[in-house]
Amino acid sequence: MDMSRYLEQKRLDVDRFLDQVIPAEKREPTTLHEAMRYSVFAGGKRVRPILAIAAAEAVGTPPRSVLAIASSLELIHTYSLIHDDLPAMDNDDYRRGKLTNHKVYGEAMAILAGDALLTLAFELCSRTDLMDDLEPQRQVQIIYELAVGSGHLGMVGGQVLDIQAEHQDIDLTALQRIHAYKTGMLIRAAVRMGAVAASAGAEQLQHLTGFAEDIGLAFQIADDVLNVTGTREQLGKNAMTDAQRGKKTYPTFYGVDGARALADQCVRRAIERLSSFDGKADALRELARYITERQN
Amino acid sequence: MDMSRYLEQKRLDVDRFLDQVIPAEKREPTTLHEAMRYSVFAGGKRVRPILAIAAAEAVGTPPRSVLAIASSLELIHTYSLIHDDLPAMDNDDYRRGKLTNHKVYGEAMAILAGDALLTLAFELCSRTDLMDDLEPQRQVQIIYELAVGSGHLGMVGGQVLDIQAEHQDIDLTALQRIHAYKTGMLIRAAVRMGAVAASAGAEQLQHLTGFAEDIGLAFQIADDVLNVTGTREQLGKNAMTDAQRGKKTYPTFYGVDGARALADQCVRRAIERLSSFDGKADALRELARYITERQN
Repeated sequence: MDMSRYLEQKRLDVDRFLDQVIPAEKREPTTLHEAMRYSVFAGGKRVRPILAIAAAEAVGTPPRSVLAIASSLELIHTYSLIHDDLPAMDNDDYRRGKLTNHKVYGEAMAILAGDALLTLAFELCSRTDLMDDLEPQRQVQIIYELAVGSGHLGMVGGQVLDIQAEHQDIDLTALQRIHAYKTGMLIRAAVRMGAVAASAGAEQLQHLTGFAEDIGLAFQIADDVLNVTGTREQLGKNAMTDAQRGKKTYPTFYGVDGARALADQCVRRAIERLSSFDGKADALRELARYITERQN
Repeated sequence: MDMSRYLEQKRLDVDRFLDQVIPAEKREPTTLHEAMRYSVFAGGKRVRPILAIAAAEAVGTPPRSVLAIASSLELIHTYSLIHDDLPAMDNDDYRRGKLTNHKVYGEAMAILAGDALLTLAFELCSRTDLMDDLEPQRQVQIIYELAVGSGHLGMVGGQVLDIQAEHQDIDLTALQRIHAYKTGMLIRAAVRMGAVAASAGAEQLQHLTGFAEDIGLAFQIADDVLNVTGTREQLGKNAMTDAQRGKKTYPTFYGVDGARALADQCVRRAIERLSSFDGKADALRELARYITERQN
């Protein structure tokens, strides 16, 4: 399959949907909506939404509502970037080659834009008009997955562990734990939400969950490698920031080549988990490969 | 009815429930859970949860799940206080007589504790074990009410309007609009969530929504009056902060006595809206009176 075309098509679908559901800049409070849109449309690759869509396709015909589910994941991801970039957190001035939210709108607005995006994610998933092709029971389950994946024992919890680990002498187990929470849990939620939307059975859901855990790890290792090998132009933000902050990463433990090999191993294992799925899971298989091969 | 006993009993119910559903401090990430608990158990009056419970009682027998719904409202309220107190926002050192979250745990942790509480609110409302006495359809509707009441066209939107209005020469219409969003929409959501949980019909829901809008306004006017007349001891935070910040409030437009009279008028109108409800709505009626009579 033509993966770059697939990615481009799905990205456009998600972007069009996000454009419809985030209020226009002219709608009051105008600055809030402008700030929300600024970061959502700052050029994200939409990896999490596309994973949700591809997981739904792997199970069967994705319901129309999968776009709302996919978009909610991007809203969560975007809010986390806005809050992570704040002066009190990572204090980053650039993200995806553009000024970070608080550099443009100020800290107060950036905090509130993040809060609003986080809340909008749950508004989207609880809208009945967007989700009328889903049983309410599945809709509740999808909302629950999103909350767990992004909350205190998911993404936010991982962010806390990550901050606490800075300048600490953590071991590999601690590093794996940080990433399982910080990146892994939302990727896991993305795949599970798509699968539940497409009415996955228990066994399918189990295989897909394992797949998600493996690619979540591969994704993070690849990110760490890119932070060492990527240029400022490729990344759209400063490179080598992990080393400057004294952060331990996969390359710290395995070296760049060792880390790359480990990521490849995770991808192979992830694809093996899909052995009981037919050709409808090909996009998911390709996505797994794409994750370690991407340059930004 | 003995209102102070009612309030005390419901507050205890809500606190006990919150204590069960927020992870213990010893659970990893320990500092995050400690920071979350610090602000949730800093002595709130639980007005929004109790409104939800009383609204459910007004309609019929509240389902067991109303406690999860009520508690989710307090999690949202608490997160909004944590973020509002941040240096980039109101920069407050004290809240309810205790140091604010970021003064104890630092800004990064305060931002993340707020994010985690916000997300936990939706986790609670989407748990099937806590909400098994509710039809999934109602559960989805309740989640939607919570998202709308607290999001970009609710509480967060109002916070943005409020920040933008500081040191501006706003008129009464603008002031009303700020408060309808900032305080009103979450109170409206509280009442509607309780009513939906108790299977309110369309007409009941309409009356209760009007009631909520009236007491939401009364609540804010009373808050503005207390900011002028209350002492630091009564409020648990500094008094006269609105005037110091150059904020226009109801006493600015009506004087203290005029503002009090307006609040009383809102409460009377709110109680009239309940004329078709029987004695089961008495707690709701008393709550409306309590709102303007409280001293903190």
